[in-house]
Amino acid sequence: MTEQKTWSQRFEGALHPAIARFNASISFDIQLIEYDLTGSMAHAKMLGKTGIISLDEADKLIKGLEQIRQEHRQGLFKPGIDAEDVHFAVERRLTELVGDVGKKLHTARSRNDQVGTDTRLYLRDQIQQIRQQIRDFQSVLLELADRHVETLIPGYTHLQRAQPISLAHHLMAYFEMAQRDWDRLGEIYQRVDICPLGAGALAGTTFPIDRHFSAQELGFSRPYNNSLDAVSDRDFAIEFLCASSLILVHLSRLSEEVILWASQEFSFITLTDSCATGSSIMPQKKNPDVPELVRGKTGRVFGHLQGMLVLMKGLPLAYNKDLQEDKESLFDAVKTVKSCLEAMTILMSEGIQFREQRLAEAVAEDFSNATDVADYLAAKGVPFREAYNLVGKVVKTSLSAGKLLKDLTLEEWKALHPAFETDIYAAIAPKQVVSARNSYGGTGFEQVRQALTEAKIRFKQG
Amino acid sequence: MTEQKTWSQRFEGALHPAIARFNASISFDIQLIEYDLTGSMAHAKMLGKTGIISLDEADKLIKGLEQIRQEHRQGLFKPGIDAEDVHFAVERRLTELVGDVGKKLHTARSRNDQVGTDTRLYLRDQIQQIRQQIRDFQSVLLELADRHVETLIPGYTHLQRAQPISLAHHLMAYFEMAQRDWDRLGEIYQRVDICPLGAGALAGTTFPIDRHFSAQELGFSRPYNNSLDAVSDRDFAIEFLCASSLILVHLSRLSEEVILWASQEFSFITLTDSCATGSSIMPQKKNPDVPELVRGKTGRVFGHLQGMLVLMKGLPLAYNKDLQEDKESLFDAVKTVKSCLEAMTILMSEGIQFREQRLAEAVAEDFSNATDVADYLAAKGVPFREAYNLVGKVVKTSLSAGKLLKDLTLEEWKALHPAFETDIYAAIAPKQVVSARNSYGGTGFEQVRQALTEAKIRFKQG
Amino acid sequence: MTEQKTWSQRFEGALHPAIARFNASISFDIQLIEYDLTGSMAHAKMLGKTGIISLDEADKLIKGLEQIRQEHRQGLFKPGIDAEDVHFAVERRLTELVGDVGKKLHTARSRNDQVGTDTRLYLRDQIQQIRQQIRDFQSVLLELADRHVETLIPGYTHLQRAQPISLAHHLMAYFEMAQRDWDRLGEIYQRVDICPLGAGALAGTTFPIDRHFSAQELGFSRPYNNSLDAVSDRDFAIEFLCASSLILVHLSRLSEEVILWASQEFSFITLTDSCATGSSIMPQKKNPDVPELVRGKTGRVFGHLQGMLVLMKGLPLAYNKDLQEDKESLFDAVKTVKSCLEAMTILMSEGIQFREQRLAEAVAEDFSNATDVADYLAAKGVPFREAYNLVGKVVKTSLSAGKLLKDLTLEEWKALHPAFETDIYAAIAPKQVVSARNSYGGTGFEQVRQALTEAKIRFKQG
Amino acid sequence: MTEQKTWSQRFEGALHPAIARFNASISFDIQLIEYDLTGSMAHAKMLGKTGIISLDEADKLIKGLEQIRQEHRQGLFKPGIDAEDVHFAVERRLTELVGDVGKKLHTARSRNDQVGTDTRLYLRDQIQQIRQQIRDFQSVLLELADRHVETLIPGYTHLQRAQPISLAHHLMAYFEMAQRDWDRLGEIYQRVDICPLGAGALAGTTFPIDRHFSAQELGFSRPYNNSLDAVSDRDFAIEFLCASSLILVHLSRLSEEVILWASQEFSFITLTDSCATGSSIMPQKKNPDVPELVRGKTGRVFGHLQGMLVLMKGLPLAYNKDLQEDKESLFDAVKTVKSCLEAMTILMSEGIQFREQRLAEAVAEDFSNATDVADYLAAKGVPFREAYNLVGKVVKTSLSAGKLLKDLTLEEWKALHPAFETDIYAAIAPKQVVSARNSYGGTGFEQVRQALTEAKIRFKQG
Repeated sequence: MTEQKTWSQRFEGALHPAIARFNASISFDIQLIEYDLTGSMAHAKMLGKTGIISLDEADKLIKGLEQIRQEHRQGLFKPGIDAEDVHFAVERRLTELVGDVGKKLHTARSRNDQVGTDTRLYLRDQIQQIRQQIRDFQSVLLELADRHVETLIPGYTHLQRAQPISLAHHLMAYFEMAQRDWDRLGEIYQRVDICPLGAGALAGTTFPIDRHFSAQELGFSRPYNNSLDAVSDRDFAIEFLCASSLILVHLSRLSEEVILWASQEFSFITLTDSCATGSSIMPQKKNPDVPELVRGKTGRVFGHLQGMLVLMKGLPLAYNKDLQEDKESLFDAVKTVKSCLEAMTILMSEGIQFREQRLAEAVAEDFSNATDVADYLAAKGVPFREAYNLVGKVVKTSLSAGKLLKDLTLEEWKALHPAFETDIYAAIAPKQVVSARNSYGGTGFEQVRQALTEAKIRFKQG
Repeated sequence: MTEQKTWSQRFEGALHPAIARFNASISFDIQLIEYDLTGSMAHAKMLGKTGIISLDEADKLIKGLEQIRQEHRQGLFKPGIDAEDVHFAVERRLTELVGDVGKKLHTARSRNDQVGTDTRLYLRDQIQQIRQQIRDFQSVLLELADRHVETLIPGYTHLQRAQPISLAHHLMAYFEMAQRDWDRLGEIYQRVDICPLGAGALAGTTFPIDRHFSAQELGFSRPYNNSLDAVSDRDFAIEFLCASSLILVHLSRLSEEVILWASQEFSFITLTDSCATGSSIMPQKKNPDVPELVRGKTGRVFGHLQGMLVLMKGLPLAYNKDLQEDKESLFDAVKTVKSCLEAMTILMSEGIQFREQRLAEAVAEDFSNATDVADYLAAKGVPFREAYNLVGKVVKTSLSAGKLLKDLTLEEWKALHPAFETDIYAAIAPKQVVSARNSYGGTGFEQVRQALTEAKIRFKQG
Repeated sequence: MTEQKTWSQRFEGALHPAIARFNASISFDIQLIEYDLTGSMAHAKMLGKTGIISLDEADKLIKGLEQIRQEHRQGLFKPGIDAEDVHFAVERRLTELVGDVGKKLHTARSRNDQVGTDTRLYLRDQIQQIRQQIRDFQSVLLELADRHVETLIPGYTHLQRAQPISLAHHLMAYFEMAQRDWDRLGEIYQRVDICPLGAGALAGTTFPIDRHFSAQELGFSRPYNNSLDAVSDRDFAIEFLCASSLILVHLSRLSEEVILWASQEFSFITLTDSCATGSSIMPQKKNPDVPELVRGKTGRVFGHLQGMLVLMKGLPLAYNKDLQEDKESLFDAVKTVKSCLEAMTILMSEGIQFREQRLAEAVAEDFSNATDVADYLAAKGVPFREAYNLVGKVVKTSLSAGKLLKDLTLEEWKALHPAFETDIYAAIAPKQVVSARNSYGGTGFEQVRQALTEAKIRFKQG
Repeated sequence: MTEQKTWSQRFEGALHPAIARFNASISFDIQLIEYDLTGSMAHAKMLGKTGIISLDEADKLIKGLEQIRQEHRQGLFKPGIDAEDVHFAVERRLTELVGDVGKKLHTARSRNDQVGTDTRLYLRDQIQQIRQQIRDFQSVLLELADRHVETLIPGYTHLQRAQPISLAHHLMAYFEMAQRDWDRLGEIYQRVDICPLGAGALAGTTFPIDRHFSAQELGFSRPYNNSLDAVSDRDFAIEFLCASSLILVHLSRLSEEVILWASQEFSFITLTDSCATGSSIMPQKKNPDVPELVRGKTGRVFGHLQGMLVLMKGLPLAYNKDLQEDKESLFDAVKTVKSCLEAMTILMSEGIQFREQRLAEAVAEDFSNATDVADYLAAKGVPFREAYNLVGKVVKTSLSAGKLLKDLTLEEWKALHPAFETDIYAAIAPKQVVSARNSYGGTGFEQVRQALTEAKIRFKQG
């Protein structure tokens, strides 16, 4: 077994092959190789700069690491299970390439601080990519909203029609959620952006290293203050998984709505061929697979968050092998969030078409203007609760008569309450109903336009 | 894009390539291929038997499917992302092999009942393998217990030494947990062992199929009663994930104990070289990686359970694309449970050695015989609560004097209470303390031997 | 502080008042009092029977416990925070009532086995009540199904109309889920129904107790085999929480459907006034609060399951104080499951009315009979995949023409394929479409009637 | 039924009593009453200021609300189940107190924005309290660390002794975790501190309200931008639950260590009487209940996080009754976090005493100075990996000989490698070993002192 070579002479017997397989992480931590090489180069440079190794040795190490990077990119670097993990795989190859000096790379560091550095470099990168994806998603929402300020859509509470609203206003609610996702990832980034390199196994090192230099080389804001904390902290991964869960919460809510809108019953949108799929036996089917799959992937990310929390519960300081389990769920969450954001951005951009005719009919065919009748009376001095009760009665009788509010004659209105005048008809027309909700942040067109303008300004500011 | 060919002519435009990738499940459901082929063969046979297709056609289909199985086993069947899922990949290859008759295979079924059948066939198999692994684990525990009936070990509550116990008794607690795991999987198996094939997309089919025949061919106990339930039920997967979580709970508890026992402070066991690993910088280290990793993997399985529950929450009937997400977590849970059971079985079998000398010292150096002093007095007629209070006082004074109970002179005992006689020394000797707890299920040697005998009998009965 | 009195003289200082509050469980474990009294009575009887205490003493204890039960039922027994837990509260009151003999009750047991007994007695009771509630729920579904065998409703996959089905068939899918819930709770009951009493703190006891007698007195099937396992096993609680989560999964799915059906867009049902609520400002609103709340409570039970799993992860043997945390989530899960089952039973029984006219229109106004056209052609010898493709084309052209399949003229049909005859109209009429899916477990009326008959027989068998 | 009065005349029938109980939230949302009153006062003031009601009316409303606050504080306000929720309870009482003008309070708002405001006011308050508690906890750690800079304790990886460290350094790792908790809550606070009041049911209102005024009155940083988002956003609650989970992760890790330290095997600390408890039957026991209970409560908070995520998954806009379920888990998480922080602060402050003598022995009795031997050789020019292997060999032979490294004679050292000199003894003495790890953030005393100084400065800055 190769593993023995890297451990001390304390060991005599060989590791059981099944146990070697069980322990090995190379099958998944190979995904960190680019970051591992980058981290090692910075470490080598620091070792040279501080005189712990000679500048010439540092140079050889960096050249060797660069060569491994090339081999990796060309698909030539394929360590087997006997390499145990990406760190040993690299060290072994490095020693093949540059000879015994390769063994000096690991001076003044441990795998514990090394893997922590790799993971943070990886996640820093991914967070930046995801934030950009969120911006793309927001752009699509903004564009769509811009086209639909005066398109009305029923607004729901309890999935019951409540009050008609501007479609743009509805879409901008998701813009706001995405904005929080973007902000939150920015804050978490600050806590990912701290460098554990040089914390050693747990206690620091006796070598005169320069941790600020290493941190700066790798673009980190600062080194960790406490070496025990540096090797055992996984808060940043949990925070990222929580932020990812929230992204999926938001996407799942939008997905649910798209699925509803695409149903025959709602028929608020048409799915285009580029984002829908058919059935293997029902020729008429056109299925909203994308939002269903996004909704389905939500639990997966929640599960990763829980898994990581459970992992950390009650772990004594400092490093424990349990921590090896932090990677697969993180990788899968990153992949899931990115693919869901991409798919939903495509879906909102080219996968759905709002059926404006149908929407216009929808807001005209229900009692969602009932509040406005109550408000109408209230504005004419009738106490709100009294007005509200009166309108409830009208709704009930209209429902049994198969009538809508707009179908009542002025006589019928006046019979209900003498305060009604001809202007009631204008007051309860859908456009007016929406337009009138002009309180700050409300669905009134003026408010919506202002919200769009502000969003665009925020966007330009980056 | 190939996908279009399998859907209806209702579609004109091509699927967006990113969406095609997002929707495809072939990268992971290829793991079901053996079960998919088996299921399709049974279906073909049923179609022939019922005359829905000719016997000759059925024969051609079965031969073609058998050939795909051979290709797969030889590593020659490698469908790309354009195959969308394992079902289409097989149907397409089948049609290449046997011509247009291949297109008849999908008569009277849908992917919805097909994938449900595949998953149940897979899980049935895995449950049987896991149950066998549990048996192997129990055997190792039983063997170890057999050797250690009279080896004493401190028994703990609150991680404080409470009362000394037989090491065999301690190990048999894990045997009992494993027994419940085995029983539970047996019960869940009954609910996995039901056949959805023939439920169609959701409503059954107009073809005169024979679902009892298909079910029997595949070794299922019976077909599902209700076609909607058949395609949308994932209870069995959730139950399996809960049973898996419990297996991990049990293994994590044993892992925690092995980690404690292997610490310098406890030193109850020695880790053998075959199951321990070293450090990359600390030459003295010998780390219990296996139990740490098992403990770490616990959260992963809990996460899968939660993920699957979330997946199912609030899904309207019948099939939804969300359900495609049921597979990866199931596969990973199966793999995790199997690898953890294997690793822990090896660990308990050859990875640890109890340090009997150290254990013997341990049980002689504390106050865990204090209850027995109280019981001694109680047996001589002193009310228990009074005896208990008296012993508490003795413990306090002995602690400050740096003495153990066995170090007290008879005079000191008598000064505490006149009921003490010379036999107090025998009564508080560790072996006697353990031996005396001879209530049913207790740690008394007689009880432990009886428990071992019963366990062996249960085992022989299978 | 009262607590000190019950501990040993080993302690000098008083417990910090905030810590006393933190540790105390009396505020919630008082819910176990009836079971605690029952368990103590059985224990006292056993102590008398085995001669560990005199029969007279046993009698006094039992009478005293009975009196506490009366006091409790009359609302007179109200232990404060200083009682720490229900066990001490009872012991203290008992000693007030019967004098020093009260102190003998705790002979040969520990709070560790005592609380385990209480919890199992409680859960046994609750499982029986919940199983009865499931039966009630199933009865309501059965009754409703009986009335709606020939009521058609659109069947969905991907929330797209797929094929029309019998409403009874749809409802019976939930009957099947509930049946699994009932079965599963029955299996779990077997593992709750085991008695830990007499396991002591962890190791059994030196007293000549009769655990089989105690178990039998309390109606348990048997005592636990291993004393360590007896005090540290919480599998049964986790299994119950998983079964509870599944009940909520099922209820949340039905809830989702009821919410959809009650929307203006679906309008498949009318909510009656007895199960719906209004809005504080929108007079027209009638909200499906019950199913929304049930759906909302789903996460709560999933959370309790997760919490209990986390609690158990990595706990060393045997009892740890962590286990005190098993109760509140169990109690809340029981309460939640019971209230949700009750509410959903009422909802399905009197809270919704199917709008049969609307349902009849719904199944006639879509393309969910497209599969039947393909099947029609297949039955006339056209290969299925070819027929399927042809129908896809028809759907597309009909959609753009604003026509349904039933609106096509015979000439149009024949132009598509010469195999079409006049009987195509009958073949695609909704009733026929449903009726024809007569495969076992399918939606064909014959099948549905048979399923109802079998369900009723199963019911009668109990 | 009282409920009907508050809904519209649309309803005829009475709510089923069991459903009324099921829907009611008054039993738990009464906890929000102080915030509900505060929110209503600000709303009333705004209504007056904008002329929607008269200033006199506003004044009456505010006086009435103030009176309800007094009644509540005096324990006189006890609404029953018929009050449905705290909002109706207050409105009803208000109308009793001030007459019909009370009915005007609900003008231009809905319960949807009202409850959102209440919850945010509550959580803002709680976060401030929790942050203060974190500061208190950090203070205790800082003080303890200050006393123990030169107290050595074994440092562990894999729970195997790795390298000795300063106890202060170990404690400061928890200080750092707490610092992140404090920072994180500060960030989340920014997202709690946004005011939904005036968003109405979902769409804003037709009344000329001033949302900025209301927000300012309540001390919020700004109103929500989008009314739909305002009533349906629960991100802030999920973020808080994630931050709470992390607090529990940290406390559970410290708890695990305290439990280990208090074990007979470690014996690193003594538990004082004020924070430990005894056993009901084992007179020698002194149990670390506090850290066990904290560890046990960890799962509870994880569960609440999961529950809330599940609650939000896939909810269509805007308000749904499901959201009523956001409160109980939030309340319980707040209570749990606060009680755990309080208990752990007391525990660290007066519940444990480090046994310095025992710690000094511990660091002198193992091979945790082995890395320093390798470093010693490396400093003398021996390549690290070679030195490392050599030391591994020494450890193995010493272990079998029952010797420690300090016990080797100079001859033995020289036989191993000629580079060893007398200074090897100084180099491997525990104090020197710790002192030498003087890299930034390491355990060297100089570094630790600097870290303490910086922590104190950060603290003073607030």
